[in-house]
Amino acid sequence: MSGFSFQLKKTDGRARLGEIKTAHGVVRTPAFMPVGTQAAVKAMRPDEVRALGTDIVLANTYHLMLRPGAERIAQLGGLHKFMNWPHPILTDSGGFQVMSLSPLRKIDADGVTFRSHLDGAMVALTPERAVEIQDLLGSDIAMQLDECLRLPAERAEVERAMRLSLAWAERSKRASEHAKNRALFGIVQGGAEPSLRIESARALVDISFPGYAIGGLAVGEGQEVMLATLDLVTPVLPADRPRYLMGVGTPEDLIEAVSRGIDLFDCVLPTRNGRHGLAFTRFGAVNLKNARHAGDPRPLDPESACSAARDYSRAYLHHLVKANEILAAMLISAVNLAYYQELMDGMRAAIAAGRFADFREEARGRWARGDFAALT
Amino acid sequence: MSGFSFQLKKTDGRARLGEIKTAHGVVRTPAFMPVGTQAAVKAMRPDEVRALGTDIVLANTYHLMLRPGAERIAQLGGLHKFMNWPHPILTDSGGFQVMSLSPLRKIDADGVTFRSHLDGAMVALTPERAVEIQDLLGSDIAMQLDECLRLPAERAEVERAMRLSLAWAERSKRASEHAKNRALFGIVQGGAEPSLRIESARALVDISFPGYAIGGLAVGEGQEVMLATLDLVTPVLPADRPRYLMGVGTPEDLIEAVSRGIDLFDCVLPTRNGRHGLAFTRFGAVNLKNARHAGDPRPLDPESACSAARDYSRAYLHHLVKANEILAAMLISAVNLAYYQELMDGMRAAIAAGRFADFREEARGRWARGDFAALT
Repeated sequence: MSGFSFQLKKTDGRARLGEIKTAHGVVRTPAFMPVGTQAAVKAMRPDEVRALGTDIVLANTYHLMLRPGAERIAQLGGLHKFMNWPHPILTDSGGFQVMSLSPLRKIDADGVTFRSHLDGAMVALTPERAVEIQDLLGSDIAMQLDECLRLPAERAEVERAMRLSLAWAERSKRASEHAKNRALFGIVQGGAEPSLRIESARALVDISFPGYAIGGLAVGEGQEVMLATLDLVTPVLPADRPRYLMGVGTPEDLIEAVSRGIDLFDCVLPTRNGRHGLAFTRFGAVNLKNARHAGDPRPLDPESACSAARDYSRAYLHHLVKANEILAAMLISAVNLAYYQELMDGMRAAIAAGRFADFREEARGRWARGDFAALT
Repeated sequence: MSGFSFQLKKTDGRARLGEIKTAHGVVRTPAFMPVGTQAAVKAMRPDEVRALGTDIVLANTYHLMLRPGAERIAQLGGLHKFMNWPHPILTDSGGFQVMSLSPLRKIDADGVTFRSHLDGAMVALTPERAVEIQDLLGSDIAMQLDECLRLPAERAEVERAMRLSLAWAERSKRASEHAKNRALFGIVQGGAEPSLRIESARALVDISFPGYAIGGLAVGEGQEVMLATLDLVTPVLPADRPRYLMGVGTPEDLIEAVSRGIDLFDCVLPTRNGRHGLAFTRFGAVNLKNARHAGDPRPLDPESACSAARDYSRAYLHHLVKANEILAAMLISAVNLAYYQELMDGMRAAIAAGRFADFREEARGRWARGDFAALT
């Protein structure tokens, strides 16, 4: 872990400005990680992802262990080289996607056994194997294996999964002692149960990790429950370790979570919505499938630093979406990722200047006002 | 037509080095035009298409007249602005795709009536309307409406279609007299019938066009018939006008056609094959779907000027193809387009240096040798 460190540089309310150092470079926090599920951020070249202001990407252990395989990626020199991304990479543990994608799975104290959604093979994932896979990939930040439930769930079930995840946290840490140049994060579970969330967080802090993730949110519980959980959990976590809210979220989620002390995010929304014709801009979401754009010569945002938002008309983007052109996914994903990174950059600058509350109000005001093109 | 001119700068055997000037810039010939069927080169951003050495792209009148409509594109400032491509554009007349895509069509002396493959609406296309549409699009080089048959076809049928295309050539030219800043090319037809090809070419030269296309090839007749047709037709065409071989072809087709005096090409192969995992390199075609690439750390061509060919391993490209990642289409299309433009650049330099025959032999030698990775 010699290659990993976190420095908290400034706080503004509970919002935090920081810097994670890894063997592959620096991550300015709060940071948004585009998702490269299968070792590729969908419809984006890695040099573009970087140019839009990305410090770190996430890749999914579940997908990569099944195809092309962790050992194969290790033979090829690791994930950074494989995907031509020489900058920081965080990998999840595979647990979440075993739950959501595998057609058949069995969980016991030892780990999870599941059927591959690709070829039907039975695959076993233990806390130790999840660590080993992430070492083979060469991630800068690895995640412990956990069990993630869909909400709502019975309290007893939530408690069982939380305690299992804690046991796996200890085993993951032991399996990880040898690791140089990468950090292992523990994951707070406990569903929507305040006492379980606090218990989980305290127990993980006792085990001690270089960073803490908050998992099991954005799985159907609604933004209020999510924010209430953050209000409970972040005060339990040590100030000198980064905090990662997994799988979140919308631009509003990001601002609200940063205002509650979160440092790291990942989400498929910018690229998934990009492939479905939905653009994020400073003035809210724009559905480019809508026929009202068909004759609109204006770009999505003439003031964007991103060429895709500035140099192509809404009429053209609408046409590309209707015509099922791959270029639609490419351009709108770029627009969305640019906006997400611009938002993170704005938050970092606002915290540095001690004006995060103002920044938050300004952003919310623009979203409330709505897309400028709808108003003119 | 004041904006259009052609200068023949040098010949080497029958191969020609030239320059087309248009209102939107210069086209160095021999030139390859990537195909932007629906106002987008598939899976490529226009700035990338340009950066890979492209002077001119082709767009398809048939697709654009149906969606988003020629009048709509005109309202939006024309095709160059619409697709963010401020460089030269050639449009076809729509005739070829009426034949190949419309589920229902009726041809008579006046023109063709067909059912849109998008919404079933009946649409009429006459020589005059084809010119009007291309004017609305704002093309730099427009094509006359012609009737293109699939080969083999009966001689009587080929003759009928050729004569109809000649009549439409005259009407197209009359409809085009007013046009400023764009050229109209006539299209030589006549199938695989030598006497009809020569008659068609002579008649078009009598009508007089600023450039001549050779159509109705690469429609199933085989390379030998195609090259024999070029041997017959190019001597009939005036040396001071550019010659465009429509819809062709493979890298070998391009070299053979240039050696017979052709100046302009378009073909979907580089981008279509790119979407299907097939790469073109200096050493021939590489099928990246093939499992033999799964562990291969080598790039497609370490000496390519194209990042996609140089900075990504075959193993990674194989993975992207297997995983159906859009990035596979993006990278392999770029590899292919880069190779096509590198080939054209090599041909232009060879003609300038008076060593086209050597260049042709060297290229054929590399293709015959095969992909370097297969041999090592």
